[in-house]
Formats: sequence, C-alpha cells, structure tokens
Amino acid sequence: MSSLNITVIGAGVVGLTTALKIQELGHRVTIVAEYLPGDEKSIRYTSPWAGAHHVSFFGDEDPKQRDMDRETFRVMWEMSAGPAEACFMRIQQTEYYAEPKAAPNPLDVMPNFRYLEPSQLKAGAASGVEFETVTIDSPVYLLYLLTRFLQNGGQVKRASVQHISQLVSGGFLTSKPDALVVCAGIGARTLGGVEDRDVFPIRGQTVLIRAPWVNFGRTLSSVDGTWTYIIPRRSGDVILGGTKANDDWHPHPRPETTTDILERTLSICPELVPPEKLAELRRKGVDPKPEDLQSIILETGCGLRPGRKGGIRLERGLFQTIDGHSIPIVYNYGHGGYGYQSSWGSARIATDLLKEALA
Amino acid sequence: MSSLNITVIGAGVVGLTTALKIQELGHRVTIVAEYLPGDEKSIRYTSPWAGAHHVSFFGDEDPKQRDMDRETFRVMWEMSAGPAEACFMRIQQTEYYAEPKAAPNPLDVMPNFRYLEPSQLKAGAASGVEFETVTIDSPVYLLYLLTRFLQNGGQVKRASVQHISQLVSGGFLTSKPDALVVCAGIGARTLGGVEDRDVFPIRGQTVLIRAPWVNFGRTLSSVDGTWTYIIPRRSGDVILGGTKANDDWHPHPRPETTTDILERTLSICPELVPPEKLAELRRKGVDPKPEDLQSIILETGCGLRPGRKGGIRLERGLFQTIDGHSIPIVYNYGHGGYGYQSSWGSARIATDLLKEALA
Amino acid sequence: MSSLNITVIGAGVVGLTTALKIQELGHRVTIVAEYLPGDEKSIRYTSPWAGAHHVSFFGDEDPKQRDMDRETFRVMWEMSAGPAEACFMRIQQTEYYAEPKAAPNPLDVMPNFRYLEPSQLKAGAASGVEFETVTIDSPVYLLYLLTRFLQNGGQVKRASVQHISQLVSGGFLTSKPDALVVCAGIGARTLGGVEDRDVFPIRGQTVLIRAPWVNFGRTLSSVDGTWTYIIPRRSGDVILGGTKANDDWHPHPRPETTTDILERTLSICPELVPPEKLAELRRKGVDPKPEDLQSIILETGCGLRPGRKGGIRLERGLFQTIDGHSIPIVYNYGHGGYGYQSSWGSARIATDLLKEALA
Amino acid sequence: MSSLNITVIGAGVVGLTTALKIQELGHRVTIVAEYLPGDEKSIRYTSPWAGAHHVSFFGDEDPKQRDMDRETFRVMWEMSAGPAEACFMRIQQTEYYAEPKAAPNPLDVMPNFRYLEPSQLKAGAASGVEFETVTIDSPVYLLYLLTRFLQNGGQVKRASVQHISQLVSGGFLTSKPDALVVCAGIGARTLGGVEDRDVFPIRGQTVLIRAPWVNFGRTLSSVDGTWTYIIPRRSGDVILGGTKANDDWHPHPRPETTTDILERTLSICPELVPPEKLAELRRKGVDPKPEDLQSIILETGCGLRPGRKGGIRLERGLFQTIDGHSIPIVYNYGHGGYGYQSSWGSARIATDLLKEALA
Ligand SMILES: Cc1cc2nc3c(=O)[nH]c(=O)nc-3n(C[C@H](O)[C@H](O)[C@H](O)COP(=O)(O)OP(=O)(O)OC[C@H]3O[C@@H](n4cnc5c(N)ncnc54)[C@H](O)[C@@H]3O)c2cc1C
Ligand SMILES: Cc1cc2nc3c(=O)[nH]c(=O)nc-3n(C[C@H](O)[C@H](O)[C@H](O)COP(=O)(O)OP(=O)(O)OC[C@H]3O[C@@H](n4cnc5c(N)ncnc54)[C@H](O)[C@@H]3O)c2cc1C
Ligand SMILES: Cc1cc2nc3c(=O)[nH]c(=O)nc-3n(C[C@H](O)[C@H](O)[C@H](O)COP(=O)(O)OP(=O)(O)OC[C@H]3O[C@@H](n4cnc5c(N)ncnc54)[C@H](O)[C@@H]3O)c2cc1C
Ligand SMILES: Cc1cc2nc3c(=O)[nH]c(=O)nc-3n(C[C@H](O)[C@H](O)[C@H](O)COP(=O)(O)OP(=O)(O)OC[C@H]3O[C@@H](n4cnc5c(N)ncnc54)[C@H](O)[C@@H]3O)c2cc1C
Repeated sequence: MSSLNITVIGAGVVGLTTALKIQELGHRVTIVAEYLPGDEKSIRYTSPWAGAHHVSFFGDEDPKQRDMDRETFRVMWEMSAGPAEACFMRIQQTEYYAEPKAAPNPLDVMPNFRYLEPSQLKAGAASGVEFETVTIDSPVYLLYLLTRFLQNGGQVKRASVQHISQLVSGGFLTSKPDALVVCAGIGARTLGGVEDRDVFPIRGQTVLIRAPWVNFGRTLSSVDGTWTYIIPRRSGDVILGGTKANDDWHPHPRPETTTDILERTLSICPELVPPEKLAELRRKGVDPKPEDLQSIILETGCGLRPGRKGGIRLERGLFQTIDGHSIPIVYNYGHGGYGYQSSWGSARIATDLLKEALA
Repeated sequence: MSSLNITVIGAGVVGLTTALKIQELGHRVTIVAEYLPGDEKSIRYTSPWAGAHHVSFFGDEDPKQRDMDRETFRVMWEMSAGPAEACFMRIQQTEYYAEPKAAPNPLDVMPNFRYLEPSQLKAGAASGVEFETVTIDSPVYLLYLLTRFLQNGGQVKRASVQHISQLVSGGFLTSKPDALVVCAGIGARTLGGVEDRDVFPIRGQTVLIRAPWVNFGRTLSSVDGTWTYIIPRRSGDVILGGTKANDDWHPHPRPETTTDILERTLSICPELVPPEKLAELRRKGVDPKPEDLQSIILETGCGLRPGRKGGIRLERGLFQTIDGHSIPIVYNYGHGGYGYQSSWGSARIATDLLKEALA
Repeated sequence: MSSLNITVIGAGVVGLTTALKIQELGHRVTIVAEYLPGDEKSIRYTSPWAGAHHVSFFGDEDPKQRDMDRETFRVMWEMSAGPAEACFMRIQQTEYYAEPKAAPNPLDVMPNFRYLEPSQLKAGAASGVEFETVTIDSPVYLLYLLTRFLQNGGQVKRASVQHISQLVSGGFLTSKPDALVVCAGIGARTLGGVEDRDVFPIRGQTVLIRAPWVNFGRTLSSVDGTWTYIIPRRSGDVILGGTKANDDWHPHPRPETTTDILERTLSICPELVPPEKLAELRRKGVDPKPEDLQSIILETGCGLRPGRKGGIRLERGLFQTIDGHSIPIVYNYGHGGYGYQSSWGSARIATDLLKEALA
Repeated sequence: MSSLNITVIGAGVVGLTTALKIQELGHRVTIVAEYLPGDEKSIRYTSPWAGAHHVSFFGDEDPKQRDMDRETFRVMWEMSAGPAEACFMRIQQTEYYAEPKAAPNPLDVMPNFRYLEPSQLKAGAASGVEFETVTIDSPVYLLYLLTRFLQNGGQVKRASVQHISQLVSGGFLTSKPDALVVCAGIGARTLGGVEDRDVFPIRGQTVLIRAPWVNFGRTLSSVDGTWTYIIPRRSGDVILGGTKANDDWHPHPRPETTTDILERTLSICPELVPPEKLAELRRKGVDPKPEDLQSIILETGCGLRPGRKGGIRLERGLFQTIDGHSIPIVYNYGHGGYGYQSSWGSARIATDLLKEALA
C-alpha cells in the first residue's frame, strides 16, 4: 500500500491516538479539529477534563471492550516507565464497593491485585480490592501525543467543521483526502453527515486541588450509583470527583455539586487536608470539612463524556459526495467514561478497519 | 402580561429582527449567538454574505410566504427613507427571464412596476419586468439592528451552544429564561435539541466590487436555473452573483466559479467596467473581460443559505428539561435565499406565536 | 481637495468620533484597531468601561480644553434628543464638594445650573452645585458611532499593530494610506513609532448595578482626592465609582475596592437600595450596607484612563518610512478621564490639523 | 534555597529554554505569554518562523556570544540523538562566501569541518567551508519544549501583558511571583516597564517547500550582504531564504521577494526541483525557474528577528512597584538571528543571574 492522505477529525485522546496508529502504516495524516491540546479548557472538548486513571469497568460480559482496555493498559504501563513517564504516575489504587461484590473481579489481572480484608474497608464499604495502575495527567499527555504526531510529520489544521463533506471537498485542507476518520467525541452528535443521535453527554464535574502529599488513588462506588474518587497526578495536583449525569449539558460547574464532591471525597480520604492542618484537626477531634480544602483548590470544572447507546462506534463505510464521488470513512467515537483507558485498543481496531477499507 | 426573560438564539437578520419585535412586547430579551454583527465573515454565519435586495419569488401559490415578504417590503421601504436610510439604497431593478413569462407577475405590486418591451430585452432574455425596490448593505444593516436592540436595553451573550438545554439551565446566562426562540439559521441542523434534518445549505458564491457608478439592479434567470445578478449598495460597493447549489458545504470561494460569475455579470451588464476603461474598450470594439474588473475586486466569498424542506419553520412547542420542567419554545429558521426580504414578516409571526405560548 | 485614503488607528470613543469628522471632509476612512465596539470588555480597551457622563473639570485656567468640552456638550445635548437619543439620558446632576468652593464654578454654563443651599448638602459636603447634563451608555454609544461610520462607507480592519510603519507600508490594508491619525489611547505608550512615555494609566474601578429607579447623577469629591459617583444609564443600569490611581496597571477589579465603592456610594445615595428593601431598612432604623446591593450587581470592572503629562496630544507631523518616503500623521490621544466629554471638540481640532497637513 | 514562584514572560525558544533551566533549580515556574507553541503563526511571535539551523556567526571577537553558541551546540547535538531526535536533523552543511575568507574560520570547531577546494565552489563563490550540524524543525521543537516544561510541573497562562507591573501585582496569576524573567523577544520594545528602544526588527522572509529529497544545508553570503540559504527539516519540508531587513516591520510576505528567494536558492541549489522534473530540464538543457517549484510550495512567510543594539540583554535588576515593594528581574532578549543557536547558553546565563539575584 502506498502512502495516502488520511484526515482525522478530532484532537482528543481518541483522535490523537488513532492518528499515531495510522502514521505507523506510513500514511500522511492531517488532524482537523476545533479544539487542540494546549487550548483553554472548554465544554466542547472533553479530554482535558478527564481525571484520568486506568480502572476498567469491563469484564467477560463485553469481551471486545475488555480487550481494548487491557491492550491499552499494557501500552500505558510501558509508557509510564519510558520517555513519556512524566505524563503518568504509577500508583496503588483502592476500589471500595458499597455492596458485597463476589469474586472474580475483572480487575484481577492488574499488577499486585488483591481483595481487601473487612478490616481494611472504609467509609461504609462492604467490599473492596487493591492493585497497581497508572494515572494520566491528561492536559500534559495530550500535548505529548500531539508533539509525537508532529514529530512524525503529521499536519494539524484548526477548523470548526459543519459537515464532513467540507473535509472531503478539500475545504479546510490543501489537498483532498483519500479517507476520513471520525473521532469527534461528543461532537459526533452534531457534526453534519454523522449526526449520530445515539451519542449523549454523561456530565462529570470535578475539583482540582494542589496536594502533592497524596500519592494513592481511591474510589467508592455506592449502591445508588454515586461514585466518589481521588486521582493524584505526578505534578502534585489531584482530581476529586465525581458525578455522572446522563443528558446533562450544563456547561459550568454547579457550586452545590462542588461542595458535595468535597464532602464525599473527604469522607473516604481525610488525607486530602494539608498534613499539618489535618494533625491539628485530629488533635481537636474535629472532622475535616470542605472549608479545610479551600486554600488548595486550583479549579472546578466539568466535562461531557461522549456516551453512546451501544458503546463505542467502531465501523467503516463509504462517504458519498454530491458530485457522485465516494471515499472510505472510519468511525471511532463514543468512549463515554473510558476514552483514555481504551484509547490504544480502539485506535488499533480503527486502524485495522482503515486498512481493510483501503485494501 | 408582565415583563419576562426571553432568550433568542441567533444574531443573523432573523434573530435580530425577531428580538426587536419581542422587545416591543415589553420583555427583557437576551440574544445568545456564536457569531455577531461586526465579526470577521465566516461560513458559519450567513447574513453578512447576503447581497441583499428585496425581490420576492412568492406569489399566490404560497400566500403565507408572499404576505411575509410584502409586509417586510413595507417596513423596509419606510426605513429606507428614515433614520436607517444609510443601510438601504432605493434603486430601479430589472428582472430578465430566459423564458417567456406570462402575466400577471407577482412582483406587479412593487412601486412603478412595468413589463419590458421586447426592444428592452438584453442578453438573450425572452421577457422581463422593471420596478423599484431597495437593496440592503447587509453588514451595516446587521450592526444597525444590533445597536437598536441594545438601545432598547437588550443583552447579548456570545456563546457556541451545543444543546438548547444549556440555555434553559441558565448555562450561558445569569438567569434562566422564561421562553426560548430559535433563529439559528443553518445551525438549526446541528444545534442539539433542534437537529432539524430538513435544513440544508444552498451555497451562494459572490464577488464584491467597488463600482460607485453602478446605481441600478439587474437579474437574469436562465432556464437551466443559472441565475446572474448585480446588487449595488449605497456605499458604492456592488455584489455580483450568483450561484445556488443545494447540499454544497464547501467553505471557500472556488476560483473557477469566480471567473464564471464575472463573465456572466459582464454579459448582462458591461457597465460594471470603470467608465473610462469601458469607453476605451468600446472605441476598440472589444468586449469587456473578467480581467477588466480585476482592479476593482474587493473580496470573493460564499455563504450557506439556510434552505429547509417545507420552507421556514414557524412553530411553537414546549421544551422538556431533564428535571421535568418545561418552557415554551418558538422556531423561526430556514429562510433560504429570502431571509432579508421576509425578515419583518416572519419575525411578526414568531412574536405572535410567542405571545400565544406565554398567554 | 480630492478624496484621499485616511487610516485612523483606534476604535475607542476618540478614534470613532475623529473618523466621523474626517468622513465629513469627503475622505475614505479606514479604522484599524485591535479592539472594536461589541467585543468582550478588556483592560486593553478603555472606552467600554467608562461611566460615562459629561461633567467637565475645566475652566478658564485651560481654555483650550474647556472649549473642547463645551463644544462636545453642545453636540451631545442635541444628539440626546435626536436619532441617537437611546444612547443618552438627560439627568439632573448634583456635585458635592468636601471643601467650600468659591463661585464662579466653571460648570455654571450648564443648563439650569444653581448653587446648593447649605441645607441641601449631604454626606459631609461643604458646598455643591446642581445642573442638567447627559449620561452616555458607553457600549451602546460606541456601537452607534461605529454603525454611523460604516453607513458613511467607512472600512474597518481588526489588527494588532506593532509599529505604525506597518500601516504606512500597507501591512494590514489593501492600499497604502495618504495620512495616518493616531487615536490609540493608552496604547499610544507602547505602539511602535509613537512610544509616548508621557502616557500613563489612571486606573478606575467600578460596579455596574441594575437599578432603574435611580434617575439622577451624584458625585462627592473629597479633600484627599477620593471621588465617589453614581451615573445612571437609560437602560436602567447604573455605574458606581470611583477610583483614580495613577500608574496602576492591575487588570482585574480588586474585591476590597469593590466593597469600598459600595460603602462610599451608599453613604451619599442610600436610594441605590431597591425601594421596598430601603423602606424596610428605614422602618428598622438600619443603615444600608453593601450586602443590600448584592442581588442587583451585574458586573465589577476596571479600566485604564489614558492619562498624559501635558494633556491630550493634538499635534501633526510627518512619518518617515525606511524607504525615504514620508506621510502626514496626526495625533489625538491622552484623554484621561474626559475622553467622552471632550470627544467632539478634540476630533474637530484633529480634523483641522489633518486638513492643514494635507493642504 | 527553597522553592519559589518564578514568572517568565515569553514562550518563544528563549522563554521556554530559560523556563526549563529555572525548573532545574527546583522553582515553580509560570510562563505568561500572548502567543504559545501550536498557535497559528503570527508576525508577533518570531520563533515558529525560524529556519532553523545551528551555524554560528561568532568567533573570538565576541567570546561571550561564541561560548553561548558553542554550549548550545553541544546540548543540541546530544538532543538530536536522544528522545528529542525527531525535532532535529543532522546534516552536512556547506557555507559559500562571495569573497575570499582567510582561515581560521570560527566554525572550525564543528564536526568534520573542512575548507572547500576551489573546484568545489559554486555559484560564483570565492571560498567556502563544510561541516556537520543540526537543523531544527522549529514549530515541533517549540511544542516539545513546552511539553517538557509542563511535564516538570510548569504552569502556562496566556495573556497579553501591557506593563510588567501587571505580573508583579498578580494580575494574570493566582499568586504574586518572587521574581520575573523577561524573554519577550521583539515584544521587549513595547512591553510596558521594559520599553527597550535598542530593540528593532530584522525582518526575514522565507518560503517553505516540500522536498524530502533534499538532505543537506547550503548558504551563500554575498558581498552586498545578500544571503541565501536552504535548510532541510526531518519532516521532508525545506525552508528557503533569506532576507535581513533592519527596521522593516511589514507583516506579510512580499510577492516580489518570494520570487527573488526562489531564484537565488535555485542558483545555488537546482536540486530543489523534484528529481524527475530536474532530469527532464537537464535533458533539455534548460535552467530551473521559480515556476518549477510552484507545485511544492507549502507556505510563504516572514518573521521579525528581535535585533538589539549591543546584542542580547542578559542583565538583572530590581523592579519597583507603585506600593514601594521591589522584586528581582532578569532580562534575556534580543537574540536577533541566533535565538535557537544560542538558546541553551543564554538560558544558562540568565539562570545564573537569577540565582545571584535570589541569593
Ligand atoms: C470528569 C471526567 C473524568 C474522566 N475520567 C476518565 C478516566 O479516569 N479514564 C478514562 O479513560 N476516561 C475518563 N474520562 C472520559 C474521557 O475524558 C473521554 O472518554 C475522552 O476524553 C473522549 O475523548 P474524545 O477524543 O473522544 O473526545 P474529545 O476529547 O471531546 O475530542 C473531540 C475532538 O473532536 C473535535 N471536534 C468535534 N466536533 C468537531 C467539529 N464539528 N469540527 C471540528 N472538530 C470537531 C473537538 O474539537 C476535539 O478536538 C473522564 C471524563 C470526564 C469528563
Ligand atoms: C450570496 C447570498 C446572497 C443572498 N442574497 C439575499 C437577498 O438578496 N435577499 C434576501 O432576502 N436574502 C438573501 N440571502 C439569504 C439570507 O442571507 C439568509 O436567508 C439569511 O441571512 C438567514 O439569516 P439567519 O438569521 O436565519 O441565519 P444566520 O445569519 O446564519 O444567523 C444564524 C445565527 O445563529 C447563530 N447560531 C447558529 N447555531 C448556533 C449555536 N449552536 N450556538 C450559538 N449560536 C448559533 C449564529 O452564530 C448566527 O448568529 C442571500 C444569501 C447568500 C449566501
Ligand atoms: C471607570 C471609568 C470611568 C470613566 N468615566 C468617564 C466619564 O464619565 N466621562 C468621560 O468623558 N470619560 C470617562 N472616562 C474616560 C474615557 O473612558 C476615556 O478617556 C476614553 O475611553 C479614551 O478613549 P480612547 O479612544 O482614547 O481609548 P480606547 O477606548 O482605549 O481606544 C483605543 C483604541 O486603540 C486601539 N489600539 C491601541 N493600540 C493599538 C495597537 N497597537 N494596534 C491596534 N489597535 C490599537 C485599541 O484597540 C482601541 O480600539 C472613564 C474611564 C474609566 C476607566
Ligand atoms: C526567517 C527566520 C529565520 C531564522 N533562522 C534562524 C536560525 O537558523 N537559527 C537561529 O538560531 N535563529 C534563527 N532565527 C532567529 C530566531 O527565530 C529568533 O532569534 C528567536 O525566535 C527569538 O526567540 P524569542 O523567544 O526571543 O522571541 P519570540 O519567539 O518572538 O517569543 C516572544 C514571546 O514573548 C511573548 N510576548 C512578547 N511581548 C509580550 C507581551 N506584551 N505580553 C505577553 N507576551 C508577550 C510572545 O507572545 C512570545 O511568546 C530566524 C528568524 C527568522 C525570522
């Protein structure tokens, strides 16, 4: 196969990873995107808002997704000890479950996995597990992926695309592409020519604090679906979450949710409070409160996870232009709350689909 | 009815005119839009690209649309002699038809209307009519409408809305609105919660020249649908067109189309050439060519007329929020190639719908 | 004099007014500016932050400036009853002085001027005067001026200019200008080729509230230079101020100053509090506090008045290009706290200078 | 020394390199800049326009500058074989001189340096040398430096600063800095509080072509100061230059200069023409012309090298705030045409100055 012009729409974690995999085939890749790594954060661009860690939800009930996640973990575990190590932090992760959870746990493949003893349970948890994993400093990792893409000779074009035919007609590019790959995340719902109404937002609100003394990850999943987590980053910043609200498009953090997140995370992790202050509170026998974190809050924010009925769309097709011409198109979007942890796996599948389409 | 908070999405000619009509009811109106008058021109914002003149296509076969256009003409004819006169130019307009066209012509209501004599026909036309009308300097008129809206106490908020629920939840505003009015033009196709797939682009490409010596308007409609026009503006600039290409989203002017437009307009209007140069060409017995216009070209451009199967959507409904709440919503979009010439009429109808909805 | 190409740099109240006056000479005027009316407010663009009212500080000690202000008042008083009336509000203005102030007062030329009786003095004032004047809704007025400029055939080009030679070489324009007019406000300090180190910021912080029940203006000037004012706008919004801090470039409102402004304005004008709440406080015998205004605060902000040692620069010269060519240049900047109230006067002088230069 | 907050203004090659060196001291560094790597190219941001290669002009007449350049070469030579290798290309470089040039040549320290034999001279050169060096893909390298800075925990804030006191007062930051480092390039002339009138532009215009078959560098320096160069990048793109025009601020490429550059580079390097086409021209005995490069031109552009009378400003001082407070300030700007090739050396000196200042 000779070298072709491939256009990828989207510069989130999915678009960038997919573009890198396509470059491995020897093609010239152009990314077209409205938002790029390094931009000010926006509700229209999910990836910079992610925590992010690798804690897969998928087991044998969804082997395709499970395998994507595992493939991605292998790549990231290796990256986290190589040249990209500064984007990652290897940590000990504890998952608490509000309800008793029978073995086997799909996470049992993770390094140093073990079940928690009842004595090790916190905050009303009925069961729990522990293992090692990586967290990802998402804004830095995105910039790292973009730099690698450019170093491989990739081109980037910033544009807000109304309809994918604009890409096919060479609208934002110097030359017409030989194939299109759509990695538009939540934008896949409203991108003309894709308009996938199965895509919906799963809004997640977070608080970013500066707490270099926190070097472990912790999650509590409650029976009512509430879900509380702490994700430390190598930089010393820590993401606190979380919320998952389907079909909620609200573009700004809600103050009452911020307070709720602070209360919930403190209840499973009083160690968020700066050590000296915590020692003092303990001396006084007082429980930590949201106010005790006030001075270390850097940012509150929210992002729209690109949910999709039916899961990630990994498909290929043909795009018909108005002048009768048609070109291959591959879809890779709808990663909900697991865009990072399935990125390398889904990018590999998308690249295989492209190879077939161009064969 | 007491004073309510009304949010209008869209700041094109339709949104601005509608907002002004709603202010007459005594409501507090906020316009939310990605693009505003005065911005650099964009393929995502149609109104600044328009010619524009008032030459209605509608007769008795579509009385609703016909009456909107006529109502608008009455308003504009008056404006063109009042405080907004600098946005308009009253001109003599000639319409040539490639085919013979039987009377009556729906334009016969226009001031000083008359049918052309065979001897007055040009450029292969088989029939024609003449009347007076107005042309509109669209970028200036939009700014005029915006200023008037602000002078009435209106608020403007620039935002790119993903889904109308973001407006209902107060996402881009200080307070939650009591009703929504959607004037999103071509954006109505991809605006979340509207997603009207009957909306499609009718692409129009134009050339803007500086030719203060041209003070009349001229159109030739050919049998094959080709359509050539000259629209002078009060400023001395003149718009040359045109093209109408359904479903063509191409965001940049195509050079070959530019040449075609220059050739076609010259064939019905050699007077576009600067007078001294034209005199010289005539002395030499040479026909004017696109090159002869080169030095007076200011800009080439293209815009996407918001076409809609079924015509303008003028409807009202209820928008349901995720928390069970609902508010009135009025739709006013899909004005194709006649957004200016039907603006005041359609805005009045939209305002009536809003009044009913709030009653 | 035939019609020439004149470039004005700056689209604040000074640039726009000057451009309009130059258009009256029949020239083609292009405004080049980084910021334009309608933009989001910025510390780099002073005019949208202004109160603004017309209350001149100048008497016989500075006849040139006094006459500019008076000329401007005549123009604005007329505008405020004509087509631009919606930009203005005619009000009764009271000026309180902390110290006794001997007659005559330079404001005695204002409509219905009179000295206050001791019994009419408030808030510790030792003297005072009363008269009629206009307030200006600055963002709306700027848009009005821009629209008028465009209606006259003016062109606008958004660009951030590093050095004025970029304008002379046709850098941001289609054609090279025949003369330059510099109305860069605070930017005149750092605009290459002007670099006037006599220009310095006089920072002013304000609070914008929504209080349609306030329809009068009031100022208290204290001996220590503190200066408190209330400026109502026709829209029902009211600007509260103020501060004047030389050489203070801080780009954001300081919260402690906001509280101070609220306290000071309440002390001379308890009527800022919503009427029902005020009635209640009075029943209880309680003084209004900043908290009582909380719910009607729309915005806090600050702007940098373009101060200049020596006052407004109204001069002409020649600009030498690197290729030996030279063109006329006129300067009109450094309007400090009186850019609105001297705008028409200083624009007329600048236009006279231009006429001389081109003669 | 404990960890302090240091603010660097500027995100060009100088600011980024300096920020990285300061991070090595263990400080928390924030970069504030109007333009950042990855932005669309602008006349206000020089670094993305650079060729760039490492070919130092400095010998024993300027030992300080010579040593900075040599120190930088050692760092880059190593980087070009390590993790940043994709930003660099190691090439064979030939320098032709129009006049005879006596040995020793200051470049004789470069790897595999040798003098050219008369028989090896081209295009009318009277002498010449050959050696190995690196070229730098400047946009990619800038993004690489930024990513490394972020990976080290650095913070970035986009802002256009009017006066450095805005940084000192915490204007664009969450906290006030302990020291300032000014790396504003050409902006140092107009940045308030620096306003260094010794800074001036040395405009350079270039053409970027796609010519992966060119894998060597070549320069011809003529007696009249004309200066022609070819700089290949690892991506297969090649920069052609050049011009050096003092005090020329023109912000756009001039078409006549583009043609001149193509002619000059072809005369010393016909191999720019695509190989098959070149073979054909040679068969026909025809010399290559600018038209023969038309199809491989990607971009024409121009940048303003930050020249400075007296060379790079490497100094420290104290900045006095209006409230009597003062903080250390270090200057590192004015790198003219050698910002890349002296970056690591000058950054090290700036960092030493900072250490002294904080001692
Ligand atoms: C609070 C929060 C925490 C999360 N935590 C984790 C976690 O721990 N682990 C994990 O794996 N995942 C996590 N996620 C989920 C993860 O962030 C997403 O799955 C992922 O970012 C989706 O990436 P994407 O590339 O598909 O979309 P995006 O990042 O949104 O990128 C979409 C791209 O497409 C472009 N685009 C879209 N439409 C257009 C158009 N019309 N024209 C031009 N460009 C267009 C956009 O500009 C953008 O460049 C979290 C998400 C949130 C909000
Ligand atoms: C070449 C040409 C010539 C024409 N000549 C004429 C003529 O002579 N006479 C005539 O009557 N008509 C003419 N037209 C047609 C006319 O221009 C259109 O009918 C009219 O401009 C449509 O106006 P609009 O307000 O509906 O849409 P627009 O002007 O496109 O405005 C839409 C508004 O909605 C906003 N918006 C959309 N989606 C979103 C979102 N998701 N979030 C936030 N904001 C959003 C946009 O930012 C914008 O402010 C011409 C058109 C063209 C292209
Ligand atoms: C709080 C406050 C209250 C005030 N109240 C009053 C009042 O009541 N009455 C009154 O008369 N005045 C008042 N003023 C003062 C008044 O606002 C100013 O005198 C006036 O706005 C100055 O206008 P200007 O056009 O000179 O500057 P600006 O409004 O700052 O405009 C400068 C223009 O130059 C452009 N520009 C500058 N540099 C460049 C460059 N390098 N490249 C491109 N463009 C450039 C800018 O983008 C802008 O368009 C007040 C000011 C403040 C802050
Ligand atoms: C055509 C060309 C070819 C060249 N080739 C070479 C070469 O081969 N080798 C070589 O070594 N060099 C070369 N150079 C020179 C080199 O590009 C410059 O020396 C270098 O880029 C200067 O970098 P800088 O960081 O000082 O400035 P810049 O890259 O201009 O960065 C300045 C930074 O300061 C910021 N800034 C400035 N003012 C403000 C403000 N007021 N507020 C906020 N931010 C501000 C800017 O936004 C920017 O981030 C070349 C240059 C050109 C134009």
